[in-house]
Amino acid sequence: MAQDQLTGAKVAEHNSKDSCWVIVHGKAYDVTEFLPEHPGGQKIILKYAGKDATEEFDPIHPPDTLDKYLDQSKHLGQVDMTTVEQEEKAFDPEEAERQERLKLMPSLTACYNLMDFEAVARQVMKKTAWAYYSSGADDEITMRENHAAFHKIWFRPRILVDVENIDMSTTMLGTKCSIPFYVTATALGKLGHPEGEVVLTRAAKTHDVIQMIPTLASCSFDEIVDAKQGDQVQWLQLYVNKDRAITEKIVAHAEKRGCKGLFITVDAPQLGRREKDMRSKFSDTGSDVQSGDSNVDRSQGAARAISSFIDPALSWKDIPWFRSITKMPIILKGVQCVEDVLRAVKAGVDGVVLSNHGGRQLETARSGIEVLAEVMPALRERGWEHRIEVYVDGGVRRATDILKALCLGAKGVGIGRPFLYAMSSYGQAGVEHAMQLLKDEMEMNMRLIGASRIEDLNPRLLDTRGLMGGHSGVIPSDTLGLRAYDPLEAPRFNEKAKL
Amino acid sequence: MAQDQLTGAKVAEHNSKDSCWVIVHGKAYDVTEFLPEHPGGQKIILKYAGKDATEEFDPIHPPDTLDKYLDQSKHLGQVDMTTVEQEEKAFDPEEAERQERLKLMPSLTACYNLMDFEAVARQVMKKTAWAYYSSGADDEITMRENHAAFHKIWFRPRILVDVENIDMSTTMLGTKCSIPFYVTATALGKLGHPEGEVVLTRAAKTHDVIQMIPTLASCSFDEIVDAKQGDQVQWLQLYVNKDRAITEKIVAHAEKRGCKGLFITVDAPQLGRREKDMRSKFSDTGSDVQSGDSNVDRSQGAARAISSFIDPALSWKDIPWFRSITKMPIILKGVQCVEDVLRAVKAGVDGVVLSNHGGRQLETARSGIEVLAEVMPALRERGWEHRIEVYVDGGVRRATDILKALCLGAKGVGIGRPFLYAMSSYGQAGVEHAMQLLKDEMEMNMRLIGASRIEDLNPRLLDTRGLMGGHSGVIPSDTLGLRAYDPLEAPRFNEKAKL
Amino acid sequence: MAQDQLTGAKVAEHNSKDSCWVIVHGKAYDVTEFLPEHPGGQKIILKYAGKDATEEFDPIHPPDTLDKYLDQSKHLGQVDMTTVEQEEKAFDPEEAERQERLKLMPSLTACYNLMDFEAVARQVMKKTAWAYYSSGADDEITMRENHAAFHKIWFRPRILVDVENIDMSTTMLGTKCSIPFYVTATALGKLGHPEGEVVLTRAAKTHDVIQMIPTLASCSFDEIVDAKQGDQVQWLQLYVNKDRAITEKIVAHAEKRGCKGLFITVDAPQLGRREKDMRSKFSDTGSDVQSGDSNVDRSQGAARAISSFIDPALSWKDIPWFRSITKMPIILKGVQCVEDVLRAVKAGVDGVVLSNHGGRQLETARSGIEVLAEVMPALRERGWEHRIEVYVDGGVRRATDILKALCLGAKGVGIGRPFLYAMSSYGQAGVEHAMQLLKDEMEMNMRLIGASRIEDLNPRLLDTRGLMGGHSGVIPSDTLGLRAYDPLEAPRFNEKAKL
Amino acid sequence: MAQDQLTGAKVAEHNSKDSCWVIVHGKAYDVTEFLPEHPGGQKIILKYAGKDATEEFDPIHPPDTLDKYLDQSKHLGQVDMTTVEQEEKAFDPEEAERQERLKLMPSLTACYNLMDFEAVARQVMKKTAWAYYSSGADDEITMRENHAAFHKIWFRPRILVDVENIDMSTTMLGTKCSIPFYVTATALGKLGHPEGEVVLTRAAKTHDVIQMIPTLASCSFDEIVDAKQGDQVQWLQLYVNKDRAITEKIVAHAEKRGCKGLFITVDAPQLGRREKDMRSKFSDTGSDVQSGDSNVDRSQGAARAISSFIDPALSWKDIPWFRSITKMPIILKGVQCVEDVLRAVKAGVDGVVLSNHGGRQLETARSGIEVLAEVMPALRERGWEHRIEVYVDGGVRRATDILKALCLGAKGVGIGRPFLYAMSSYGQAGVEHAMQLLKDEMEMNMRLIGASRIEDLNPRLLDTRGLMGGHSGVIPSDTLGLRAYDPLEAPRFNEKAKL
Repeated sequence: MAQDQLTGAKVAEHNSKDSCWVIVHGKAYDVTEFLPEHPGGQKIILKYAGKDATEEFDPIHPPDTLDKYLDQSKHLGQVDMTTVEQEEKAFDPEEAERQERLKLMPSLTACYNLMDFEAVARQVMKKTAWAYYSSGADDEITMRENHAAFHKIWFRPRILVDVENIDMSTTMLGTKCSIPFYVTATALGKLGHPEGEVVLTRAAKTHDVIQMIPTLASCSFDEIVDAKQGDQVQWLQLYVNKDRAITEKIVAHAEKRGCKGLFITVDAPQLGRREKDMRSKFSDTGSDVQSGDSNVDRSQGAARAISSFIDPALSWKDIPWFRSITKMPIILKGVQCVEDVLRAVKAGVDGVVLSNHGGRQLETARSGIEVLAEVMPALRERGWEHRIEVYVDGGVRRATDILKALCLGAKGVGIGRPFLYAMSSYGQAGVEHAMQLLKDEMEMNMRLIGASRIEDLNPRLLDTRGLMGGHSGVIPSDTLGLRAYDPLEAPRFNEKAKL
Repeated sequence: MAQDQLTGAKVAEHNSKDSCWVIVHGKAYDVTEFLPEHPGGQKIILKYAGKDATEEFDPIHPPDTLDKYLDQSKHLGQVDMTTVEQEEKAFDPEEAERQERLKLMPSLTACYNLMDFEAVARQVMKKTAWAYYSSGADDEITMRENHAAFHKIWFRPRILVDVENIDMSTTMLGTKCSIPFYVTATALGKLGHPEGEVVLTRAAKTHDVIQMIPTLASCSFDEIVDAKQGDQVQWLQLYVNKDRAITEKIVAHAEKRGCKGLFITVDAPQLGRREKDMRSKFSDTGSDVQSGDSNVDRSQGAARAISSFIDPALSWKDIPWFRSITKMPIILKGVQCVEDVLRAVKAGVDGVVLSNHGGRQLETARSGIEVLAEVMPALRERGWEHRIEVYVDGGVRRATDILKALCLGAKGVGIGRPFLYAMSSYGQAGVEHAMQLLKDEMEMNMRLIGASRIEDLNPRLLDTRGLMGGHSGVIPSDTLGLRAYDPLEAPRFNEKAKL
Repeated sequence: MAQDQLTGAKVAEHNSKDSCWVIVHGKAYDVTEFLPEHPGGQKIILKYAGKDATEEFDPIHPPDTLDKYLDQSKHLGQVDMTTVEQEEKAFDPEEAERQERLKLMPSLTACYNLMDFEAVARQVMKKTAWAYYSSGADDEITMRENHAAFHKIWFRPRILVDVENIDMSTTMLGTKCSIPFYVTATALGKLGHPEGEVVLTRAAKTHDVIQMIPTLASCSFDEIVDAKQGDQVQWLQLYVNKDRAITEKIVAHAEKRGCKGLFITVDAPQLGRREKDMRSKFSDTGSDVQSGDSNVDRSQGAARAISSFIDPALSWKDIPWFRSITKMPIILKGVQCVEDVLRAVKAGVDGVVLSNHGGRQLETARSGIEVLAEVMPALRERGWEHRIEVYVDGGVRRATDILKALCLGAKGVGIGRPFLYAMSSYGQAGVEHAMQLLKDEMEMNMRLIGASRIEDLNPRLLDTRGLMGGHSGVIPSDTLGLRAYDPLEAPRFNEKAKL
Repeated sequence: MAQDQLTGAKVAEHNSKDSCWVIVHGKAYDVTEFLPEHPGGQKIILKYAGKDATEEFDPIHPPDTLDKYLDQSKHLGQVDMTTVEQEEKAFDPEEAERQERLKLMPSLTACYNLMDFEAVARQVMKKTAWAYYSSGADDEITMRENHAAFHKIWFRPRILVDVENIDMSTTMLGTKCSIPFYVTATALGKLGHPEGEVVLTRAAKTHDVIQMIPTLASCSFDEIVDAKQGDQVQWLQLYVNKDRAITEKIVAHAEKRGCKGLFITVDAPQLGRREKDMRSKFSDTGSDVQSGDSNVDRSQGAARAISSFIDPALSWKDIPWFRSITKMPIILKGVQCVEDVLRAVKAGVDGVVLSNHGGRQLETARSGIEVLAEVMPALRERGWEHRIEVYVDGGVRRATDILKALCLGAKGVGIGRPFLYAMSSYGQAGVEHAMQLLKDEMEMNMRLIGASRIEDLNPRLLDTRGLMGGHSGVIPSDTLGLRAYDPLEAPRFNEKAKL
């Protein structure tokens, strides 16, 4: 044991609000004064007071977090980890079942589409990680509508078109890419995979698609940029900080490191309220929560914890300032109605992403694909369709979904969760397989729709009447009548039948 | 034993139609002559003839009932309760299971939304109480449509609006309140909680919202008014009695005690026919009901029993009389089409509640939110939108529901059942938690919709096309085809998969 | 043993195609020559060759059948039933289960609506009887749509109408009745109840409603007429025979016996193909049916067997002849589009029943209530609405259904199956209880809609937009996506929760 | 053992990529050089290297395949099959269960409609065969929509039409046939039945309907033609080869052998991607597929394997050439929008089949019946409705489906899968029974619709409003609300009930 190393016992003494030390990656930190400032609340830190917090810390904090946010005087130095008591984990039957399922996990080649990764991930991911990735706002109606909305649009394919050579490559914000989708920004990659977002970077390179780097990544921004190869292109997704100086620093740094697009998130002045995520956290810490205790530090799930810096005062007035601090194309991510798209054109931004944030923010916010069908005719009517690039994300699972968006007029689509599920289940190979499946589907479906190039896609190839009626839903039916009804049955298999 | 006290044995002698005594709260009453007049029928009284009826009596009758309706000569005085034979309750397996469930009940903080209270209440409430609160008319299509109708309306949120400071306070009938919902009137609070409606009064105070006092409360009107604190505001919900003198007395008393609004129920000339409620009563007393006996006193559930005084002859002609007896604002509760709203304006009332009585009265009566979408344009067309305050109730479960009503033009929304479920499961803390959840959701959703004050809400923030097509339902599909279809499956987890 | 009586042994000798005797109600008949003419096929008779066929015979044949259709020379006289060998029935597990269910049958008062009778009947009726009553054409989509169609129509109730006194009586074809429904004609009443249709006659009397006598009754026409009391009114439903002389005789006889309306069925030139019915027959006789034997006498269910006499050549040309043979009002039963209603007016008939035969004939034929919504405006446009009485049947289960039909403009509605289910389960008391339930609902719902008399009902009380979009159905959704989705869950009840 | 016969041992030596022999029908073949050219990939052949491949070979290759495609020098001659080692099959629990089900299989007469055959086939067919026949594109939404679309069209039947004599015969491309459907082309008949497509030929003869011969049949073209009898008529379905000389040879040969129509498939420039089919193949060979191995020869299911010759460059420019090489009527099979039908008329072809290839190609391609409703008015508007014959296929299961297509204006409909299921389950008798069921339904339904001849069918007999709204689908509903809802229940059966 090195002379200047702390012992586990020493650290363990500081296990309270009054003096709170934690170990992260073999080093001790005094976080006593930091407790009230912790964006995720004190409670989660106190759970690890005097202990090793690395496992909990990692997915939620980029590696440079402690250096950035905790004064050096609080960095207490190396701990001799052999002296740190290993906490025995309580037996968790759900976790044990997960371990069993992991042993029986299907091979990667058994995944034939993007939904398959979700089905596998649901079985093999840690409960809290799954809850964070898969959850949506309120009743998750919007999240599901995002995918379902594509089923309201049907094709009007053309026959007898020469489709021997399919070229699905396109250009997005000036960057040529192999297929018109990009990896959209999603937070906390290390929840699903120990290496985090760099896995997506590598897979994006393999398939020549663009990656959008999230503000709330588990890896640091620089790690993700360092992971790119050759002329690979990345964009930056930005949550705007209340402290504009921090934002300016981030933007300048991104531009310097070669980012080719600045996607400002505008649909999330406040993050979260995803109940699946909240409930998964809850059972974690449920033991000391008392019924009726109204002073309790209610956990709002991972999303809320990590987003307290976001500025809800961000407004149209800020756009010229962004224009002034960067030469990157500026794109508003999360536009949700035609009025705001028109205003965006006037504000001189370079693009918009029609998106409801994957159904994670406002419940019953319309899907991006539906908004797209409203936006493009309004742009064309004004001759503005080339003044701005329009992207869409949310619910894209099939090449047919991509094709529908492009027929309507989108430049490209963003895909998020499916790649997270693929990464969490099968790592980089999984993400690459998912992308390959989309390419296979895309080639086939362009043939079947009668379009050999992206430029051939147009609205006349679609029947969009299903979007016109709004969200009509269905009236509840009578359960008494349904249950009283005796359904027809198919021929029965039984001994008697063959007598 | 006090000399002037009756013995249980003495009371037990009077156990028939010919001489019927019952004990309530330790006192004996001779109800022989009252039997034919009992609004709930003789049968239910005879079940307790010669016995202690307190438990059955309490939730259905305010404490001043016996004083008000039974001549003092029939008040027989104190009973020595130690001499009253305790009836041994038959073992009820359903009740035993409920007791087991109560032990496993989730803590209050595990409730993340208003539906969660309903899910808990369904498990922990007494069967008959649950049946009374949760039941609706006929097939309960209307009751469910009330909530489902909100899902036909989707948002068109605005971005880049400064939403740092959210102010969700508003004014209803001149009263400032913290958020635009009120606790609407619901009957028989003691079915769910031993203290009854005063629990709601206290929670309403905590959150600075208005409570509407029900005519059919378990607590007496004065108990509920006594429970208010400071400048807390209450309204009165009124079922109009066939005897207008009684009604006049009630109204005058309410005004004197400070009620700030008179809500006359106009959608219930006759109450009830809720089969879930009827069925729950039935199994209670099923043993002596004989098949084919057509003279039997068919139980119509709690609703019918307590409402025989309501005047089905109430009509527009009565409105001026109401105007003459009170200075309180007059609001018609239960208006269901635009024609009647216009007539209400002409009749000079101060407000309407668009409501189908929580789906408890007329089956396939349209939801309040749908009627609202029809009413407001008609009012605006005539420049009448400020001549009347329009409220809506039924199916409100989420802040998004409240926001949709307000965007359409409502002044506020009434919420009933969810608070009953919260009260029945967790008492006052439950109701307060439910209200807090709505406030949390409201703050977040106003941010996400791009509105920082109630005045910012307007119809352009909504897509209401889903309401335009009427109630289209779905044609039944072919079960043979559905069953013959072999659904796709996700990758399988099994030993073979990993070989 | 009487000298002139036959022995069971003697009859049993005639047990083949070459000589076939059967016993019915204690008498023997030689049906050898009749075999090829039997409308239901030879096979079913040969099953009983030499045996007692009474049980199978009764529900399908009115008692006067043998006298009418078998020459007296074939009536062989009394059989000494003590000498007839009792066939031991093979143990039938389904029947044994039914017997168990019969013991646990709910009491009549546990039935709160017409669906409840169906739910009970499904459990207690003999399988073949249930199959005959409950089956519909093809996939039974139409049968279910009949009821579901009512849910597409919603009310626009009026408030503050004096509804103290409700009068639901009305006049149909000149007959005053207590409520605007009638018992429509349904075949084979003895399948459900040993006494057959006379049970319905008696219940109709109790409630002062009109009964329509079916051509295909189990009771003879005269038995049903004999069962009426006082000034009770009956109508005749008529299947037109290929031999018009027979039809003329039936009509003349009905008029003489006092029938007040002639309902000519026009939607059934051929009866049947109801697969539930066919399948139920099949398993009955399945043992000797060989796979691939194409000469087999395929059973088409009860409907086909009893209807071979119906004339598929019946046409508009026949109407004047009907006019010439009777003074009864003539009503066409089974009209299905506006064009044919207009033609019926021109042809001078007195009424139409808009009906798809209870969904038992043509699959995806529109419901009567939908056709009504198309027909009445067309009649009113021409000022013809009083030249003809319009009735509707199919799917009526609730008073709200009746009210919707009357608001649209129908004079009355026919109800069939629900009364059969009530009769089969609880006999006359069941039918009367069902009728009483409808009256209770009707009184309540007229109050709630704001109409005190039948004349107050009008189309402005309805929102029928749900009928305008046609039968849009729903596109199948993706099972992969649905299954991959992890639904939200309510708070869990478990040990951990309360720690 | 004959002197010139090979031994099993000798063949077994050639069991690798370097030297690969296989036995088919008792003869050995050297396929070493052919391996890279095999359209289905090398892998599947190597599985049988040195072994008897007959069972796998047969359904996928017509008997003349080896003669046609493998040089005579590679034909190694007879193998003494007694010396070939019988491979012991691994116990397959799924197959064992299937064998059990086969024993309990319902008799043919228990099938009352075409769906019943599907339900039986699903239970008794080999897994891979079932997967090939039953699978569709992507999520199989389109495949199911094909049938569901018919349910959006409802009848407006006419009454009082003389329908005594029903004549359902018609003429298609100049050929008189007994009923307006034909057996459409489907691939790989021997997967379902050892004799393959000739079974369909014989059944078609029995019922006087036309058979379309598939390019991808298991039987050779000549075998299928040889199986026809008398003046039976056949058509040819054609996948166009990249090598036009081969196509020309096929067409000339078909014309010479008497085919009366040339149906050029235009909706399948690339075949397959049916995941159910792919997954069924996968588990077959899953053992040597490694997770993450991206060089693996991914099986794309049977469809892809057999279709690599199809020319994706086929275009409108090729039509005159087809006109020049045959006198047969030319029909484009797989047209999917009105624009292409109009172009087809101008191109001078004789007919079109509106089809999405049974939902097996492009997901969310509209159903043929929906396209028909768009096409016919456009043709009539131009007076072109007699310049081209319009057929439709996909989802036809009932005579009502056929009638709807004919009312809209189709000359006839193609039926595929149902006959495959009937053949696979019950052989020729099954197919004949299926056809007879359609005829029975057709006769009945023509009566019920009021049409005695095919010429009587017209659009006024339909209500097609359900097709007008596009594919509106349904918004996902809230599972929390649905689960919290306590459904009504019917009367309970229990001991207590009868006390």
